[in-house]
Amino acid sequence: MVSILTHGQGREVELNPLTRKYFIELKPPNKMDNQADVERVRRYLPERLRQADIPLEVIRKLPSSLREANWGVTITTAEIPNNPWIINVEPGRHIDRHYGLALDIGTTTIVIYLVDLNTGHVLAKASEYNGQIQYGEDILTRIHLGSTEKGLQNLRRTLLGTINQLVGQIAAEASIDRNELCALTVAGNTTMIHLFLGLEPTYICREPYTPVVNSTGPLRASAVGVHINPQAVVYCLPCIGSYVGGDVIAGVLVSGMYEQPYLSLLVDIGTNGEIVLGNCEWLVACAGAAGPALEGGAAAHGMRAEKGAINRIKINPRTGKVDYQVIGGGKAKGICGSGLVDCLAELLLAGIIDRSGHFIEDIQHFVVAPAEETATGKDIIISQKDIKNLLRTKAAVNAAVEVLMEEVGCSIHELKYFYSAGAFGEYMDRESAVTIGLYPDLPRQNIICLGNSSIEGAKLVLLSQDMWREVEALAKRITYFELNNNQKFMEKYTSGLFLPHADLSIYPTVKKKLEAKARL
Amino acid sequence: MVSILTHGQGREVELNPLTRKYFIELKPPNKMDNQADVERVRRYLPERLRQADIPLEVIRKLPSSLREANWGVTITTAEIPNNPWIINVEPGRHIDRHYGLALDIGTTTIVIYLVDLNTGHVLAKASEYNGQIQYGEDILTRIHLGSTEKGLQNLRRTLLGTINQLVGQIAAEASIDRNELCALTVAGNTTMIHLFLGLEPTYICREPYTPVVNSTGPLRASAVGVHINPQAVVYCLPCIGSYVGGDVIAGVLVSGMYEQPYLSLLVDIGTNGEIVLGNCEWLVACAGAAGPALEGGAAAHGMRAEKGAINRIKINPRTGKVDYQVIGGGKAKGICGSGLVDCLAELLLAGIIDRSGHFIEDIQHFVVAPAEETATGKDIIISQKDIKNLLRTKAAVNAAVEVLMEEVGCSIHELKYFYSAGAFGEYMDRESAVTIGLYPDLPRQNIICLGNSSIEGAKLVLLSQDMWREVEALAKRITYFELNNNQKFMEKYTSGLFLPHADLSIYPTVKKKLEAKARL
Repeated sequence: MVSILTHGQGREVELNPLTRKYFIELKPPNKMDNQADVERVRRYLPERLRQADIPLEVIRKLPSSLREANWGVTITTAEIPNNPWIINVEPGRHIDRHYGLALDIGTTTIVIYLVDLNTGHVLAKASEYNGQIQYGEDILTRIHLGSTEKGLQNLRRTLLGTINQLVGQIAAEASIDRNELCALTVAGNTTMIHLFLGLEPTYICREPYTPVVNSTGPLRASAVGVHINPQAVVYCLPCIGSYVGGDVIAGVLVSGMYEQPYLSLLVDIGTNGEIVLGNCEWLVACAGAAGPALEGGAAAHGMRAEKGAINRIKINPRTGKVDYQVIGGGKAKGICGSGLVDCLAELLLAGIIDRSGHFIEDIQHFVVAPAEETATGKDIIISQKDIKNLLRTKAAVNAAVEVLMEEVGCSIHELKYFYSAGAFGEYMDRESAVTIGLYPDLPRQNIICLGNSSIEGAKLVLLSQDMWREVEALAKRITYFELNNNQKFMEKYTSGLFLPHADLSIYPTVKKKLEAKARL
Repeated sequence: MVSILTHGQGREVELNPLTRKYFIELKPPNKMDNQADVERVRRYLPERLRQADIPLEVIRKLPSSLREANWGVTITTAEIPNNPWIINVEPGRHIDRHYGLALDIGTTTIVIYLVDLNTGHVLAKASEYNGQIQYGEDILTRIHLGSTEKGLQNLRRTLLGTINQLVGQIAAEASIDRNELCALTVAGNTTMIHLFLGLEPTYICREPYTPVVNSTGPLRASAVGVHINPQAVVYCLPCIGSYVGGDVIAGVLVSGMYEQPYLSLLVDIGTNGEIVLGNCEWLVACAGAAGPALEGGAAAHGMRAEKGAINRIKINPRTGKVDYQVIGGGKAKGICGSGLVDCLAELLLAGIIDRSGHFIEDIQHFVVAPAEETATGKDIIISQKDIKNLLRTKAAVNAAVEVLMEEVGCSIHELKYFYSAGAFGEYMDRESAVTIGLYPDLPRQNIICLGNSSIEGAKLVLLSQDMWREVEALAKRITYFELNNNQKFMEKYTSGLFLPHADLSIYPTVKKKLEAKARL
C-alpha cells in the first residue's frame, strides 16, 4: 500500500454508467414460436441494443443460462453509442451486483477503485508501486526499454502483473467475482497507456513526438489482458499528445474548467509538468520535462511522499529553528516534494537564501533535521545543489505557462482559477507554493487542489456516459502545443530561476511578505 | 480428396467483396502536425471507415509498418455496414494480393475454395471428409455427442482440425500466407454451424426445436479459431431454423428463385430433405428427416459417391440386361445415391417391380453387378428392403413438399421451376428422378441442378456485399415451417410410397412411359 490520497473535487454527475444490467423474463419457445435463443433475447433488449454485438463467448453460455433459470436472465451490456455489445449473461436476477473499476496508471504508482455501478459508491481502494520501477524510475528509461519488442513485452507484462494483482486483491476484499467486473476506465500518461496496451513508445520521445494512438475508443478486457470479465469494457481516457495524457484530461474533467467562462490554468506536476490553459471556449495544453526534483527524486535527502518523509517545514525567521512534520509520525527518513517546497519558501522568508536561491551566508547546505532526530542517524539537509534543482524545475513550469500564455495572447492578470492536479499537489502547502513562485499569486480560495484527479476523472467516466462523451470531446477540443525545442522557452526560463520570479510585480503578496521581512 | 464437383449456377455478380485493400501514402508527421499514427491513418480512410474499429493487434503493428515503407501502407478493411474494422496493415503496396475463402461444412464433406478477391477467380479448391465422421455419420449422433461440454469441444476441435488442415493445404498450394487470407464465408446446416462455433446443439433436436442462434453476423477469425488472419471476417450464412441452415439459403441465393415472379421449388436432399417454396413475394421453408437412404447410406451395397461407386444404371426392358457406369472406372464396389435412383426407375420401367416397389416375380433382390465384375468378388444387389427404404425417403420428401404447398395454398400445377441443390443432385439423372417421383414432372429444362450450391452461395457472399445483404434479407424473409409432428404429413406420406406417386395425374410423362411399357 502506498499512502496516496485519492479524493477529488467530488463533482456530482448523474449516474449513467458505461455498462448496464437488465433482468429479462423471456416467453419460452413453443411450436408456433421457436425462434433461436439469440434472436429471442434480442426481442427483449431496448431498441438501441437490438443490433448489439453478442460475442461468441456469451452466445455459448446462452442456451444453458436461459434454461437454468426458467427463461429469466440478467444481461450486462456495454452501452457504447454506435458500438454496443453484450458483456455477460447470467441465469436469474443479478441486477443488484454491478461493478466496475477505475484505474490510475502512474509512472510511479498504480491506484485502483472498485466502484458499485448501481450507487456510484467506491467500495474499496488499493494502490501499489508500478512494478515497472524495477526497470527504471523515469519515463525516458521506460520508453527506451519499450522500444525493443522484448522490452515492451516485459514492461507490459510487469504492469499487467501489478494491475491484475490489485484487481484480485480488491475483488476478493469485496467478495466479488472477477467476472462480475464489467467495466474498467483507465487514466494515465501517454507512455503508460502505450505500455499498458503493448504499443511501441519509441516515437513518443523522438521528434516530432508522435504517439501511436491518442484515442483507442472502448476495448475489451480480453484484448487488453486485464483479468476481469473477458468482454468487459476497457476504456482508456484519450491522450492529447506525447506528453499530455488521459491523466491530464481527467484533471480537466474534474476541475470543470472547460465549462467556465473565466480563464483557468491547470498544472499537473509529476516527472513532467503538464499544463492546460483555457475556458469554455478554448483550451490549450503543453508539457515540459519538469524533472524529478519536485517529487523529491533528485534532492540529496529527497524521497517519495510516504511514511518517514518530512512533508511540512516551518523555520522561525528570528531563531532559525526548524519545525517539521513527518508522514506517519516517527523519525524522519528524508524530505518529500511538499517538504522541499516548504523548505525553499521558508529559507527565503527567513532570509537564509536570496531570491536567486543562494545561501546568504557561506554555507553549502542547511540542516532540516539533525542526526539525533532522524531514522538514518545522519543530518537531513537541503543543499545548494538541491535548491538549484528545485529552482530549475520551478522555472521550467513557469516558462511553460508563460510561453503558452504568450502563444494564445493572454496575460497572467486575466487568470481567475488555478488547479493543481496530481498526487504531488495534494500535500503541498498552497502558501509555500505561491511564495516560491510555483503557483500563481491568486486569491487563495481560487487556488484549488484536485488531489488525484486522474483516478477521480476515470471514476467519473466509469459512472457517466455524459462524462465519457465529455472526455472524448475534450480530447478533440484541446489544442496540443509542442514545447520541445521552443525558442522562447529559454528566455522565460531564465526569469523563472528567481524566487518567486524575476518580475516581482506578478507576485504582489510575496513581494509584500519580502518587504515586511526586510523591515524586520 | 473427395470427388465432389463444386461448380454451380455461375450467377454473375458485381465484384464488391466484404473486404477491401487500400494503399495509402501518408504525409509524415512534422513539428506542426504531430498527430498520432492511428489518427493520422484515419484521415486517409474513406469517410464511411473513419470511425472503423482498429483492433489493438493492428495498432501494435502500425508504427513500424508506417515507418518501414516511408509512410506508404496497405490497409485491409472489413466493409461491414455499421460495424467496419481494420483487418490488417502492411508496409508498402500490396493491393494486388487480396484473398478470401469460401467454405461448405457438410455433415459428410468439407469443401473449400480459395478465391482471389480482386478478380473473383477461384484459385484452388480442396475437399475432405468431415473429421467428425469418426464420431458418427448421422447428424443426430453428433447433436447427442455435442450436448456434453467435452463432446462439443471434441466435435469443434475435430471440425476445426479438418478445416485448418484444408486452409493450410490450399494456401500453401497457391503460395499465400495465412495472414493474407482476410475473409471466410461459411455455409452449412444449422447443426454444423453450431459445432463450428462451439454452440450447444442440444435443443436443435428437442421440441420445440430451437437453435442457439440463426444469424451471428460477421465474426473475427481469432474468436472462431480458424487459422487465417486473426482479424479476418468470418461470416456464416444465416440459418432459418433448426433444420434449414445457411447451406439452404445459399441454394436459394444461387437459384435466384427469390427474385422471380414464378413459383419455384428448391429441394436439398442430404441426410435431411430441406425444401424451399416461393417466389419474389414470399418464401416458405421446411425440413424433414429424409434419412441416409438416398445418399447410399442405408442400402445393402450402398456407398458414397466416390471412386468405385455405380452411379448410372440402365436395364434393357426386354432382356433384363444391366448396363452400369462406375465412378473413376474400374471394378464396382457398391452403388451410390444416383445409382440407386436410376436402378429404381429402371426396375419400374422394365417391369421388374410394380408401382408399390414390390418385385413382381418371387425374388428378394436384383443383381446389378455380378460377382465376377465387382471389386468385392460378391454380387452387388438391390434388395426388397433397399427399395422400401428408398421409397420411404422419397415419400418423406413428397410429403414435405405437399404439406408445405397445402399450407400456403398452392398446387403442384402452378410450379414453374424445380431446383435440386446439394451435392446429391449433381450426379442424379433428372429423368430417373422424375420417374420415381422424387422430382416433379416439369418440362426438363425447368428442372435445374445447382450442384454444390452451398459453397457457390458462400462464394457469392464473399465476393459481393450485395449478396451479403441478400442472404441477411432472405433469412428474415423466409418463413420457417416446422414439420416435426405435423399431422397431415402421414397422410401425404402414404401417397408418396408409390412410384412415382399414388396420384399418377401429377406425373403425366411417367404415366405415358408406363402406358407405353404396358403396351409392349
